[in-house]
Amino acid sequence: MRIVVLAGGIGGARFLRGLKAAAPDADITVIGNTGDDIHLFGLKVCPDLDTVMYTLGGGINEEQGWGRADETFRVKEELAAYGVGPEWFGLGDRDFATHIVRTQMLAAGYPLSAVTEALCARWQPGVRLLPMSDDRVETHVAIEEDGEQRAVHFQEYWVRLRASVDARAVVPVGAEQAEPAPGVLEALGDADVILFPPSNPVVSVGTILAVPGIREAIADAGVPVIGLSPIVGDAPVRGMADKVLAAVGVESTASAVARHYGSGLLDGWLVDSVDAGTVAEVEAAGIRCRAVPLMMTDLDATATMAREALALAEEVRA
Amino acid sequence: MRIVVLAGGIGGARFLRGLKAAAPDADITVIGNTGDDIHLFGLKVCPDLDTVMYTLGGGINEEQGWGRADETFRVKEELAAYGVGPEWFGLGDRDFATHIVRTQMLAAGYPLSAVTEALCARWQPGVRLLPMSDDRVETHVAIEEDGEQRAVHFQEYWVRLRASVDARAVVPVGAEQAEPAPGVLEALGDADVILFPPSNPVVSVGTILAVPGIREAIADAGVPVIGLSPIVGDAPVRGMADKVLAAVGVESTASAVARHYGSGLLDGWLVDSVDAGTVAEVEAAGIRCRAVPLMMTDLDATATMAREALALAEEVRA
Repeated sequence: MRIVVLAGGIGGARFLRGLKAAAPDADITVIGNTGDDIHLFGLKVCPDLDTVMYTLGGGINEEQGWGRADETFRVKEELAAYGVGPEWFGLGDRDFATHIVRTQMLAAGYPLSAVTEALCARWQPGVRLLPMSDDRVETHVAIEEDGEQRAVHFQEYWVRLRASVDARAVVPVGAEQAEPAPGVLEALGDADVILFPPSNPVVSVGTILAVPGIREAIADAGVPVIGLSPIVGDAPVRGMADKVLAAVGVESTASAVARHYGSGLLDGWLVDSVDAGTVAEVEAAGIRCRAVPLMMTDLDATATMAREALALAEEVRA
Repeated sequence: MRIVVLAGGIGGARFLRGLKAAAPDADITVIGNTGDDIHLFGLKVCPDLDTVMYTLGGGINEEQGWGRADETFRVKEELAAYGVGPEWFGLGDRDFATHIVRTQMLAAGYPLSAVTEALCARWQPGVRLLPMSDDRVETHVAIEEDGEQRAVHFQEYWVRLRASVDARAVVPVGAEQAEPAPGVLEALGDADVILFPPSNPVVSVGTILAVPGIREAIADAGVPVIGLSPIVGDAPVRGMADKVLAAVGVESTASAVARHYGSGLLDGWLVDSVDAGTVAEVEAAGIRCRAVPLMMTDLDATATMAREALALAEEVRA
């Protein structure tokens, strides 16, 4: 079975670990969000790709969900001693090596997809990890800070400001001109199932869908497209998805997110058991819906979620 | 008193520490060798400039004479895990930060001289440190390895091969097209004394002299030019200077090095007490010469050497 997954960072990576356990023989291609990529200290940092790579490759800091295990921060401390920031972005020493290799390969002319493949040669994530695009896309967030309107990089909004101010708009700068990376459209065309893990619907999955051609390829694939709600009850399972959902005018509920994707894209949607009351509303929007436990508390629970998603796909197909 | 010093790495840096102690009120400008600069992992590394900066700024690893004190190697270990080398060059985590800041500033368009000034704003070396040139100069060494003639970067010759094979030629690639960095010719023109510390006469001082204009500015300065022999007895005090001296056809003796610089450049030369027998030979070449202890065993001994050099300068001037 060929499964394609559109993944952001922590939520996507953890779901993928469950999916690999649930479908060990599946051929899994991950289309990773690169909209939160950022240039720091002259280096190209791809947080979501790295989170997927480290999580599936066994190098992740399990507690925080991003960055490397057993990490130190010597380089960052020294950069601060030079007065060079930003200090709010937690780049560790082991992590720096990844960005140094990536930046060096990009400077040598390799596209991001080839660089990602080279990095994965070490990590052996057990999936084919593709960036959504080799072109630069950077998500910016329009905010009002200290009475002034300004646009900040998504990482600044998310990490420095911790989404503490309202997002007035979320713009994936460069997405309109971007092309899907080599292999992306082919993977979607060859897929048996397409999954949206419980990743952020705006700045993770939404950014991937903003690359021209990807949304169309999903809609035209003619295979079940199944999503898992990142909202449980009235709150995001993790992160601050409600802030960016508000910016695009979407309520922070499992049902609203499904309707935001829409029946033109989604065939099936899993909501958490606590949201069983919204199943009828989602189905009324033309999307088959089931309520199951959606908390990725451990690998078993996550694998069960993945099995439920694949089961819903078969139900849709039949 | 305005003193200009042409410095390589370890020997030059240690001598400068003695000079600062010997002449605490002097205005010291250091023209640093950049011929051993190297691009590693996409980063611009300037070993000699950094050795001077770290040594005078209190950040040096005292035992080895280069690199940072209290250093770790996490980034390098991770790079090796990606299969990215070279492994023979010892870049530590704290040191990496310096190269990251430098590379970022160079990429932003600042010349190396401005970058060096910015880095020194943190280290406060107590001297004005100028790179010999803002243009790229890289010393290459022609060798025969495994029966094949090839040219290697100086660092590869010095660090990877440890000068274990003969150097057939030493070429400061790019030097002919290089211009002295801003301030270099002005400092030489304004100097009261010019000193050559016991640095390598070929790959350190020699490379600086290879930048068109610098040798002429020294010869035309009309002030005492005093050198200290890096050769004591028949051997370099440290490093493997004999290997590169042979490549330029110069014997590895204190006298031969003085005559290699020549009386057109040098006014005075200090040799070690053990080489007192060569004083007459040096003086016969038109260079005033004194034999004094030249081992930089501690700060006091080094300060005494610096005082001897300044005394010889006054003797020449009178």
